[in-house]
Amino acid sequence: MLTNRRFLLRRRPQGEPVPDDFELVSEALPVLDEGQFLVRNHYASLDPAMRGWMDDLDSYMPPIPLDAAVRASTIGVVEESRAEGFAKGQWVMGLNALEDYSVCAAGGFTQPIDPGLVPSVTNYLSLFGAVGMTAYFGLFDVCEPKPGDTVLVTGAAGAVGSIVGQLAKLHGCHVIGIAGGEAKCARLTQRYKFDAAIDYRGKDEAALTAAIAAAAPGGVDVIFENVGGIILDAGLMNLNMHARVGLCGLISEYNSTERVGARNLWRLIVKRASIRGLLVADYVARFGEGAAQMGQWAAQGKIVVDEHVDEGLENTYAAFMRLFSGSNQGKMILKIA
Amino acid sequence: MLTNRRFLLRRRPQGEPVPDDFELVSEALPVLDEGQFLVRNHYASLDPAMRGWMDDLDSYMPPIPLDAAVRASTIGVVEESRAEGFAKGQWVMGLNALEDYSVCAAGGFTQPIDPGLVPSVTNYLSLFGAVGMTAYFGLFDVCEPKPGDTVLVTGAAGAVGSIVGQLAKLHGCHVIGIAGGEAKCARLTQRYKFDAAIDYRGKDEAALTAAIAAAAPGGVDVIFENVGGIILDAGLMNLNMHARVGLCGLISEYNSTERVGARNLWRLIVKRASIRGLLVADYVARFGEGAAQMGQWAAQGKIVVDEHVDEGLENTYAAFMRLFSGSNQGKMILKIA
Repeated sequence: MLTNRRFLLRRRPQGEPVPDDFELVSEALPVLDEGQFLVRNHYASLDPAMRGWMDDLDSYMPPIPLDAAVRASTIGVVEESRAEGFAKGQWVMGLNALEDYSVCAAGGFTQPIDPGLVPSVTNYLSLFGAVGMTAYFGLFDVCEPKPGDTVLVTGAAGAVGSIVGQLAKLHGCHVIGIAGGEAKCARLTQRYKFDAAIDYRGKDEAALTAAIAAAAPGGVDVIFENVGGIILDAGLMNLNMHARVGLCGLISEYNSTERVGARNLWRLIVKRASIRGLLVADYVARFGEGAAQMGQWAAQGKIVVDEHVDEGLENTYAAFMRLFSGSNQGKMILKIA
Repeated sequence: MLTNRRFLLRRRPQGEPVPDDFELVSEALPVLDEGQFLVRNHYASLDPAMRGWMDDLDSYMPPIPLDAAVRASTIGVVEESRAEGFAKGQWVMGLNALEDYSVCAAGGFTQPIDPGLVPSVTNYLSLFGAVGMTAYFGLFDVCEPKPGDTVLVTGAAGAVGSIVGQLAKLHGCHVIGIAGGEAKCARLTQRYKFDAAIDYRGKDEAALTAAIAAAAPGGVDVIFENVGGIILDAGLMNLNMHARVGLCGLISEYNSTERVGARNLWRLIVKRASIRGLLVADYVARFGEGAAQMGQWAAQGKIVVDEHVDEGLENTYAAFMRLFSGSNQGKMILKIA
C-alpha cells in the first residue's frame, strides 16, 4: 500500500520559521471519491508568499490550517482517477501541497499540462507558472513601463525579479537591479543583461539611495518591488514624476516580528507617484497571452530562466529557507519524485 | 517711511519647531523695479505643508532659504505698482511670505482676485484656494469615489479633510472621519454631516483598526490620507478590493525626527489597492472648474467651511503650531492687517 509523506505545518512561525514549526509525517492515502483524482507530485514550487500563508492573517487566501500539509504549487502525474478528463499518466499542475500525493477534484485549480511544449516540465513552475506570469503582468500591466524608462527591480536575482528585468530590457528600458552579494550582481548584468546591479549588502538607506542615484542619475520611473524596508525607502527617494511602484512582495518583512515599514511615503506626494499592489491571481484569464509571449521570447533565446532544484521532501525546510537567506540561484523548486 | 515686519526662518527646525527657529524683524521696504508691485498682505494661509518647506529636502519646491521670510499663500491689496495690470487698490492672491508687504512681479504667481464673488475674502485661502482645490481634485480625480463607496478621511476636522468629507457625502458616499477629540468628532457628524467619526486619541493601531471596522463593516473603498503613521496603517487594514488611497499629507510625521512609516503596505497586495500622492499644483489649470462647482455648492448651502483666524504677525509661531496640536477649529489663517 502507498504511503504519503506530507510536510505539515504544526504551529505558526514566530518571525523566522524554525524546523519545529513543521513535521514530515507518513500517512495512508485516502480512498478517492467520485470526481477525484490522485496526483503523484514530482516538483513543488517554493515561494516567499508561502511564508505569508503560514500566518493567521486576513489575506488573499486563507491561512494554511495547522496540522495540514503546507500549500504549494506542484506539478505531477495522475496516478489514479475517478474524474473525467484526468486519465492515469496525465501531467497536471495545481495548487496542492508539499506531499508525495495530492488528492484533487475535477473542476478545481489542478489542470492538465503538456510537458512537450517546454524545454523542462519544471518550467511550468517558473517561466510559464505563477512566477513568469507575475513578472509579465506585474511589469506590463501594473507598472506600465515605456521604452526609455528607467526600471528598478528589487530582489532582482530572485525568480520573479530576474524575469522582470529581462522583460523590461526587451521593452527598451534602462534596467537596474538590487540583489545581495557580488555573485548575484554579476549574474544580473552578465546573464540577465541588466544595465546595472547594486549589492545591498552592507549598505544603509543613505548608501542605497546614493547607489541608486548613481546608477539612475535621471531618476527611476518604475520600481518593481519585491523586498520592502530600507530598500523600498531608498527607491522612493529616487522616483521621477508620476513614477509607478508595482508592489509584488515584501520579502524583507515576512519573517520580522517588528516590521520596518516604509518611511519615505512623502516622496509619493512630491513626485505624484503611486504604489500599487499586484497579485498574479488577477491575471489567470490572460495566462495564455502571457505564456505565448514568454514562450516566443524563450524560444528566441531572448529570455533565460534559472531554476534551483533541491531534492527530497525531507529537505523541504532547508530548501524553503534558502528564499530568505538568498542562497538559491534562481527559481526555488523542490523535487519530490 | 513704511517698515516691513517679516517672520524669518533663522534655522531649520529639528523635529517640532521652537520659537527660536524664527525671528520677527522689521526691515525697510525695497524700492520697486520696473515690472514689480508691492502687496500689503491682509491674510496669510498657515498650512501643514509649510513645515516641509522648512526642511532641507528635495521636494516639490525648494526649501525656504535660511534668513528669508517664511513662504505662505497670502491675500492682500496692491499698495504701489510699477507693473501693468496691477493697479493700486487691487486685491490679489499669491504665494508670498509671512510679512506685512510682499514685493511681487507681473507674470508671477500673484494674481488678481475679486472679493465681491465670495462671502469673505478669506475664502480665497480656504474653499476657493489650495485647500478647497486639494479637496476637490484630490478626492474626485485621484481617489475616484463612486456613489455608494465608503470613504475614510483622516485629519477629517482639518481644513482639507472637512471639505473632502462633505464632497464625498454630496457624491453619495458613506463617509467616516478620524479626528482628535470629542469636540472635533461632534463637528464631523453634526456640522459636516459625516456618517461616523472616530476619535484617534488614546487608541493604538489595533484599536483604530477595530474602530474603522466597526464604522465600515463592509470595508473602505477610498482613504483620503492626511495623517500617516498608525492611522494610515489602521486604514490599510480595512481596505476593500481595488481600494484607492489618495495621499495628501502625513502630518503625524512632519515634526518627527524618527518617522513611524507605514507597516501594513502588504495590504495593498492582498487587496490590489494603491496609494497615490497628490498635489494641488497639478490642477492649477482646472481651478476654474473646481471653484465654480464649489461656489455653486456653497451658495446652495450644501458645503460649509470653517476658518480659524488668529491675528497679528507677532503671533505667527503660536498660530502655526495649532496645526500640529490640533487646537485650530477650521482652516488656519493669520490676519496680518
